[in-house]
Amino acid sequence: MELHHVGVAVPDLAEAAERYRALGYQLIAEEILPEQGVHAAMLQSGASRIELLEPLGPETTVGRFLEKRGPGLHHLAFATPNLIEQLERLRAEGVRLIDEAPRRGFGGHWVAFAHPKSYGGVLVEFVEEPQ
Amino acid sequence: MELHHVGVAVPDLAEAAERYRALGYQLIAEEILPEQGVHAAMLQSGASRIELLEPLGPETTVGRFLEKRGPGLHHLAFATPNLIEQLERLRAEGVRLIDEAPRRGFGGHWVAFAHPKSYGGVLVEFVEEPQ
Repeated sequence: MELHHVGVAVPDLAEAAERYRALGYQLIAEEILPEQGVHAAMLQSGASRIELLEPLGPETTVGRFLEKRGPGLHHLAFATPNLIEQLERLRAEGVRLIDEAPRRGFGGHWVAFAHPKSYGGVLVEFVEEPQ
Repeated sequence: MELHHVGVAVPDLAEAAERYRALGYQLIAEEILPEQGVHAAMLQSGASRIELLEPLGPETTVGRFLEKRGPGLHHLAFATPNLIEQLERLRAEGVRLIDEAPRRGFGGHWVAFAHPKSYGGVLVEFVEEPQ
């Protein structure tokens, strides 16, 4: 499994995007995801992607993250060719899942999150990316 | 500039490495860096790398990070072909540097850190990686 992107929580998407643009990243997609409570932007440089997450309000998951920990690294996302099978494997390994079933995420991808408790404090997302 | 690795602070290197091995990552290098106060391990899957950092004691930088924030995502490292030139560019852009000059890091690489204040709360490392 490979890294799909690194998620970063930011209070201001435009300002943060500027910073990564200065490092050579280009904006490849931007989307408002009301269900997740975020305004998200995907930036890419070569094979690496950074997802910026600006909360839609203080009571969203990312809003509470910013309130509690401040802006910064939020999650790691790994690409998997088959999310249903991946979730079965994770369950068999005893990984604690936040999403028991795939749901739609950024860019129409099927995604599911695993609990940071299962990954040493790292919030882990799995993104279906057909190979 | 591309992502070189994602740094993760962990209380127990062996236990954490096991978790990423289950995701398909392989240990490619392991090193004790007394100056940085860490026992570090680099894991790789395809083009993506995760650096695990276990502190050598509670008074080290990573030891204090664990004490304050708990285990989890610690820094993003970007590869640059020429670190001296990169640091000059960053200075010209007003980026606040932790290391004004390159120093030796993991694997004998020349590295330098920039302050999280300049990257929206993200600790950023630059790693010289000749192309």
